[in-house]
Amino acid sequence: MKALVYHGPGRRAWETVPDPELEQPTDALVRIDAATICGTDLHILNGDLPDVAPGRILGHEAVGTVVETGDAVTTARKGDRVLVSCVTSCGHCRPCREGRYGLCSGGGGWILGRTIDGLQAELARVPFADNSLHRLPEGLGSEQALFVGDILPTAFEVGVLNGGVQPGDTVAVIGAGPVGLAAIVTAQLFSPSVIVAIDLIDGRLTRAQELGATVAINSGREDPVAKIAALTGGAGVDVAIEAVGLPETFELAVELVRAGGRVANVGLHGRPATLHLEKLWPQDLTITTGQVDTSSTPRLLQLVAAGRLDPSAFTTHRFGLHDTMRGYDVFASAGETNALKVVLVTDRIALAAVESERFFVGGGV
Amino acid sequence: MKALVYHGPGRRAWETVPDPELEQPTDALVRIDAATICGTDLHILNGDLPDVAPGRILGHEAVGTVVETGDAVTTARKGDRVLVSCVTSCGHCRPCREGRYGLCSGGGGWILGRTIDGLQAELARVPFADNSLHRLPEGLGSEQALFVGDILPTAFEVGVLNGGVQPGDTVAVIGAGPVGLAAIVTAQLFSPSVIVAIDLIDGRLTRAQELGATVAINSGREDPVAKIAALTGGAGVDVAIEAVGLPETFELAVELVRAGGRVANVGLHGRPATLHLEKLWPQDLTITTGQVDTSSTPRLLQLVAAGRLDPSAFTTHRFGLHDTMRGYDVFASAGETNALKVVLVTDRIALAAVESERFFVGGGV
Amino acid sequence: MKALVYHGPGRRAWETVPDPELEQPTDALVRIDAATICGTDLHILNGDLPDVAPGRILGHEAVGTVVETGDAVTTARKGDRVLVSCVTSCGHCRPCREGRYGLCSGGGGWILGRTIDGLQAELARVPFADNSLHRLPEGLGSEQALFVGDILPTAFEVGVLNGGVQPGDTVAVIGAGPVGLAAIVTAQLFSPSVIVAIDLIDGRLTRAQELGATVAINSGREDPVAKIAALTGGAGVDVAIEAVGLPETFELAVELVRAGGRVANVGLHGRPATLHLEKLWPQDLTITTGQVDTSSTPRLLQLVAAGRLDPSAFTTHRFGLHDTMRGYDVFASAGETNALKVVLVTDRIALAAVESERFFVGGGV
Amino acid sequence: MKALVYHGPGRRAWETVPDPELEQPTDALVRIDAATICGTDLHILNGDLPDVAPGRILGHEAVGTVVETGDAVTTARKGDRVLVSCVTSCGHCRPCREGRYGLCSGGGGWILGRTIDGLQAELARVPFADNSLHRLPEGLGSEQALFVGDILPTAFEVGVLNGGVQPGDTVAVIGAGPVGLAAIVTAQLFSPSVIVAIDLIDGRLTRAQELGATVAINSGREDPVAKIAALTGGAGVDVAIEAVGLPETFELAVELVRAGGRVANVGLHGRPATLHLEKLWPQDLTITTGQVDTSSTPRLLQLVAAGRLDPSAFTTHRFGLHDTMRGYDVFASAGETNALKVVLVTDRIALAAVESERFFVGGGV
Repeated sequence: MKALVYHGPGRRAWETVPDPELEQPTDALVRIDAATICGTDLHILNGDLPDVAPGRILGHEAVGTVVETGDAVTTARKGDRVLVSCVTSCGHCRPCREGRYGLCSGGGGWILGRTIDGLQAELARVPFADNSLHRLPEGLGSEQALFVGDILPTAFEVGVLNGGVQPGDTVAVIGAGPVGLAAIVTAQLFSPSVIVAIDLIDGRLTRAQELGATVAINSGREDPVAKIAALTGGAGVDVAIEAVGLPETFELAVELVRAGGRVANVGLHGRPATLHLEKLWPQDLTITTGQVDTSSTPRLLQLVAAGRLDPSAFTTHRFGLHDTMRGYDVFASAGETNALKVVLVTDRIALAAVESERFFVGGGV
Repeated sequence: MKALVYHGPGRRAWETVPDPELEQPTDALVRIDAATICGTDLHILNGDLPDVAPGRILGHEAVGTVVETGDAVTTARKGDRVLVSCVTSCGHCRPCREGRYGLCSGGGGWILGRTIDGLQAELARVPFADNSLHRLPEGLGSEQALFVGDILPTAFEVGVLNGGVQPGDTVAVIGAGPVGLAAIVTAQLFSPSVIVAIDLIDGRLTRAQELGATVAINSGREDPVAKIAALTGGAGVDVAIEAVGLPETFELAVELVRAGGRVANVGLHGRPATLHLEKLWPQDLTITTGQVDTSSTPRLLQLVAAGRLDPSAFTTHRFGLHDTMRGYDVFASAGETNALKVVLVTDRIALAAVESERFFVGGGV
Repeated sequence: MKALVYHGPGRRAWETVPDPELEQPTDALVRIDAATICGTDLHILNGDLPDVAPGRILGHEAVGTVVETGDAVTTARKGDRVLVSCVTSCGHCRPCREGRYGLCSGGGGWILGRTIDGLQAELARVPFADNSLHRLPEGLGSEQALFVGDILPTAFEVGVLNGGVQPGDTVAVIGAGPVGLAAIVTAQLFSPSVIVAIDLIDGRLTRAQELGATVAINSGREDPVAKIAALTGGAGVDVAIEAVGLPETFELAVELVRAGGRVANVGLHGRPATLHLEKLWPQDLTITTGQVDTSSTPRLLQLVAAGRLDPSAFTTHRFGLHDTMRGYDVFASAGETNALKVVLVTDRIALAAVESERFFVGGGV
Repeated sequence: MKALVYHGPGRRAWETVPDPELEQPTDALVRIDAATICGTDLHILNGDLPDVAPGRILGHEAVGTVVETGDAVTTARKGDRVLVSCVTSCGHCRPCREGRYGLCSGGGGWILGRTIDGLQAELARVPFADNSLHRLPEGLGSEQALFVGDILPTAFEVGVLNGGVQPGDTVAVIGAGPVGLAAIVTAQLFSPSVIVAIDLIDGRLTRAQELGATVAINSGREDPVAKIAALTGGAGVDVAIEAVGLPETFELAVELVRAGGRVANVGLHGRPATLHLEKLWPQDLTITTGQVDTSSTPRLLQLVAAGRLDPSAFTTHRFGLHDTMRGYDVFASAGETNALKVVLVTDRIALAAVESERFFVGGGV
């Protein structure tokens, strides 16, 4: 089969590799119908995740069709259209029993496209299939479901649920990239009164407002602390969601919340931050960190199927799977291409649609 | 009347001052029967809390008898024996409605012995009496109830409840001073399997074990990280409670918890700490800060009255209220006197007991 | 002043009565700007609530302007435009400290228009003003805020919050009268996937669908159990909200929920129901009862002010306050008039609007 | 092998049956070291559970040693000493993902000794071994762990956790049989102030007090409602746990709780009860039903291993496994034998102990 293979920092290729095979009785083989490129894939290509070995097939967000299942798989069946969760989970270790699948100590967690071969491929082996595949509700298109694989549960669980957003709350989302926008979209499931988007790029802020942010602050031109103080009568927001991954933005998040508020960190950080306990110790603050568990995946699929959550706005570009290399080029140049999420499709109808369009959504590429 | 008056950094006196009077219809006047000296009082004398003005009567943990009440006070009555909560609360601002009385924005919070005159005095004016006084259950002695005024709810709310201690948990308490010991005592209300006490002083660790810690680590001689890793199969504790107030001990607390665990900061900090987000971002960590709300006071009084919680072990020294100056001397030299909590008593029976003993508990003074 | 006075079962009059006066230092006098008639008022007129004595002024949902305040009132000021909560609360008893203001044991709870004079009057005395009045956010009209006084927090707290509605849930609301419709509206704050409205009257079901119900079942023609089984793959709904008050509808609610689901009773019941424990004991069911606490009032006011919650659809009829008798006639004949909520207005602008319309919303009167 | 076989109502035999074999790759075979007889087994023998077919081996609470495992089993290994949970669980259906293993829709739930062969046997096949077996902590004896298989998690989860017992609470437990006593024991993990045991038999009440009940009410001689009113200042208890399974005792539980309190039903009911909604509708009551999920098993094992929970007091009688028939005789005559839990042992040391004693604990048999 063909797949996108990582060959060490800066090197990737769309090439022929051996077909995957079932290895464990709990495995399934899935034919990929649609996959995405994730910001984390770029991190891998930058060499930031040294646990990814050269030769690894990348990709961890996809929709596909089950081709074969191991003897111990009881729910997935050949021919099922499924969402492949970015997190696989053994289902019986302590973290799994607590719903913290991302911390699975029984061989799961985020391993696809990282420590085992991933989903930017024609075929993929998915471990713990009973826990890691989600059958698509009737009538749900591949692309509608696709983002429930990673970006939506990440923003919802680590940002919105950890942040404890409640009806009427004032929420600040720092960073209006794909995950920050997904936080803005999923925060609305709890009906906050005010959602403030903070970013340095006006285009992203505009998109944030289109997706439901009620206030936009360009932190390059305006002081978010002063503006939010004005907005909240000096108190600060109820919830701040950090979706960047820098010490400065984390510290800003902490500074923006009111006494009694919550800071939910979603960003992937490379450096330590300073926590001003000399001011914060009496402030009844709650700070959370975390990675996605995909425990909310069934719920999010239901919401998409019911039309209550529309992820289609995240797709800016579509390519055929065989054009994955070009997809990476576009995604890696988001500054020029305005790429938000790049979708790679293989099923014939979607592919036909891509080709007949000739232009990709988000255009200009 | 007589009272302990702060006269600026390093200066205090037991002197005659005007009797307090009712100022608001929600006030009560209380005759003090027993009071304590708190570590925070020493901070004030060090000049660490600049919002305490010279001339202020100190003290914020006491039991007394109601002498007079304002027109709008409906529950407290002349002659009632009451616990005076260290936190007064208006009862109607947003924080009060959420039970966060420590953050009261309606004129309450921790103000006694800080921004208004306090409780190391023969008489005290207590604002918002209906919310700030708790009638003592029948048969409960002053000294049994006394520590429910501050130290017990502080450790219970900010340490144990914020830390979410559950039956079977492994809990580390960093710092075995009065508040750390109170955390060790109140954590047991939730039946953890293991309570690890960490301190630099062996005497405190011995006391921690007498009060229920199951493991003691002298962090001057042993590496808490290695020892707790050994104890927990490499995972870390479920809950770490910081009861010191230094960057190093906070950072240790964060290092000791398992993925998915909770860090509850109780310590009063003067300097920022470093938060290693580059390691913590995927760890599903929850970190809380806070000050006491005394929302748990009725519950704790019930537990003391029922004999389920015994705070008597905290008292190491007793003096007559008129001997408050000597009490401060002893408390300020805890290194030599081993003072934990110093109690100041005025009621005749307790006083007689003190005098007949001639020696104070904790001895050697 | 003029007021609507209850004179025993079946008898009411709009008549001249003495002006109310401040009685306690915590009281406020409020001039009524807009009030409503509630279904409970009809219950009183039916003689169903024997603790309402003849001579009582009715009404417990209003917006007004503060005229005078007692010495102990600190937040409300003369001239403030305020929402008068149907529940007053002392703020310091145990239920109040737990946010259960409806159970206030310090003299509050639902007493307005029941055990003390109410709000269908030109002036009203409101006890515990600091806890019972909510200043209106800038720019919020009387009528927008009005229903936050009773019907919205009742449906939200006792139905939606007790029912624990979560994003993606399937919710059944039994009874599409005013409170049931308010449950349908406020449930959407938590983004359920499916809201099923069940009633006997098609007109109400149509209104339910206009307000957000996604499925309507006329239980006179269709079997709700069968239809919901079909809708949920045989499982049942996640949450059932009872908003009628009959044994049959309560038993239906219990029958409709899935194992692990929740039944929130909002209805006011006059007779016992049967609980089929022989089927339910292993079903992991949670059943709640309750009355409104108005603990959510500030949050709901924020949501209305932010435009996230629009209560205007509840008003079907408007009268001048002096026309309260006619309002009762219309409201008591809801079967013919389709009255949902009848609003009584006194402020000049609203009144002018009423008069210039000549016809009332909901028409046909 | 030998096993206790059900042959229809009133008929049981200890007889030779074929050895069980692995059927699914997720199965394990376990050699039983110790098992119990449960009250439910008597219900089966009475013919109360018609889904139990003649020919079925009974028993669902045991400790054993793993003999063989299927290909998909990853955690249990031959030779492991394990607790066999009464509830098996697939680990991937919706209820399992929510920790509601008792409602497993993937083939698990309580099936051992009910719809598949059980544990009163020399060998047993355990489905979903990775989710259903719990390795015993080092040094924990079979009999110490045994009751964590069913009775302790049942009382803890369905009674104490569902009831939301908190430190300082007043708790009433109705029924002081094995499960009621286990509720009394596990409620203490949350440090209530008062635990009231209610039963008709003085011997059980004595045992309840030995195990931690602070008040005993013989409801044959005293009125529990009046006595609890006296005890709680007229308010009622915070939590009532029903551990009988009769309409009368359920209705009593509801009557005993305060407004705002919780009723947790643990009893297995055969008939409907009456719910007095005409009184309860405004009472802020929470009522729960449920069956055990064994989600708390790891936690309870930790507590037993740490010596914080001592289940040994439940054992009143011990027999060799080959004497299971005699064990049933004793257990079925609890009125005369005072049997609480009858333990069946096979391991040599325990057996030797049984035989050397000659008398069984609880004596007089």
